[in-house]
Amino acid sequence: MAKNIQSLERAAAMLRLLAGGERRLGLSDIASSLELAKGTAHGILRTLQAEGFVEQDPASGRYQLGAELLRLGNSYLDVHELRARALVWTDDLARSSGESVHLGVVHQHGVLIVHHVFRPDDSRQVLEVGAMQPLHSTALGKVLSAYDPVAHSEALEVDRKAFTPRTVTDLAGFESVLDHTRARGWAADLEETWEGVASVAAPIHDRRRMPVGAIAITGAVERLCKDDEVRSELIAAVRDCARSVSRDLGAGRF
Amino acid sequence: MAKNIQSLERAAAMLRLLAGGERRLGLSDIASSLELAKGTAHGILRTLQAEGFVEQDPASGRYQLGAELLRLGNSYLDVHELRARALVWTDDLARSSGESVHLGVVHQHGVLIVHHVFRPDDSRQVLEVGAMQPLHSTALGKVLSAYDPVAHSEALEVDRKAFTPRTVTDLAGFESVLDHTRARGWAADLEETWEGVASVAAPIHDRRRMPVGAIAITGAVERLCKDDEVRSELIAAVRDCARSVSRDLGAGRF
Repeated sequence: MAKNIQSLERAAAMLRLLAGGERRLGLSDIASSLELAKGTAHGILRTLQAEGFVEQDPASGRYQLGAELLRLGNSYLDVHELRARALVWTDDLARSSGESVHLGVVHQHGVLIVHHVFRPDDSRQVLEVGAMQPLHSTALGKVLSAYDPVAHSEALEVDRKAFTPRTVTDLAGFESVLDHTRARGWAADLEETWEGVASVAAPIHDRRRMPVGAIAITGAVERLCKDDEVRSELIAAVRDCARSVSRDLGAGRF
Repeated sequence: MAKNIQSLERAAAMLRLLAGGERRLGLSDIASSLELAKGTAHGILRTLQAEGFVEQDPASGRYQLGAELLRLGNSYLDVHELRARALVWTDDLARSSGESVHLGVVHQHGVLIVHHVFRPDDSRQVLEVGAMQPLHSTALGKVLSAYDPVAHSEALEVDRKAFTPRTVTDLAGFESVLDHTRARGWAADLEETWEGVASVAAPIHDRRRMPVGAIAITGAVERLCKDDEVRSELIAAVRDCARSVSRDLGAGRF
């Protein structure tokens, strides 16, 4: 009973493979990527297909992720307590700031977006629930790395990629960003992940004072910043919102 | 090679169990629901937990669905060709109709919502991507049952529940609804699923003339209907939108 189940681990590796990069792969590609015999890979794929986790394109024979994952991902959100508590507060934050709001939690080596409120204007926007953000360069990632020991060690281990000339990639620089974050209680990303985009984030704590997630305001650097600093009213608004959600989760006032 | 892999089938059954009903379950509940020995169930759960598909609440020891499902579900959407083609058209339909728009595909015994455009007003709305709708009572479900043979046989097999006094549940009545749907090319749901809510849907076909999904406008019955009929301009708009997406997918004009 001490070992994990190999066929399950292999199936999970297949789903991860199909979730990244090419996303539509033939049997041979999958088998060779995971160093499995073709017959073994096919047995797993056929079972995953029967369960709806994988779909096969009838024309090309290639495999891709299946609809059951979407249904299960939605059920995950339904049971997410932090998200449920944050719904109203993040909505209010998007209205008052006029910008889009994201709620993120640590997952694997990054930030998983579990809620996204669109910027309240008429523009076309892409929903980012389920998307991942890097730990080292985004405001959400910095806040989580500063307060959550698991996120911290992951952020130190991962390849801290330079997305723009402003991304902080060296270890000493990154650690001092985290010290600064802890000292002031919030983090910013001024074009360190996406050119032209800034964000500001604050941490959410639960009743045991554990960091369980973070909330960010994200938008055009021209709107969010003034003299290369995040506007103070936006900093205050995101921190207020994070405090309200924390209180809602049972965190003490002091 | 002929049989599917039992541990994978059991893992999928566990995830389905956690996606429905209680959603936070202890080891004993899971083992007894699936008629497994506790040790067997624990081995599968531990592996699912290591892969991020399941999370265990530290306080209660209960299991629930994990964050990796949300990430994979989002990747499924990214690769969804129908959804990608429909994004712009459904956005335009929501703007022109002033109502919310859903894109649905057949999955398991129902309709899986793969895209949802909010009603373009300032109201608070809950995103329904990943949610399921019944085949027999919704406009999307009727359209898919009328045109897709797989959906048709599933709709005949499932328990056609009466959600409101207007739901058609008997077999002959349901079949005549589908005949009517095929004859006019669209379907409506006038308070047959939710009290006070109406919807109207039209089918999307691909280049092989196969029904691959459906588009619906949904909203308050007072706005969508007049004299107990869906307003003709909304019927025209949803059919136009479905035709445009079909054309985009390569369906012929005739």
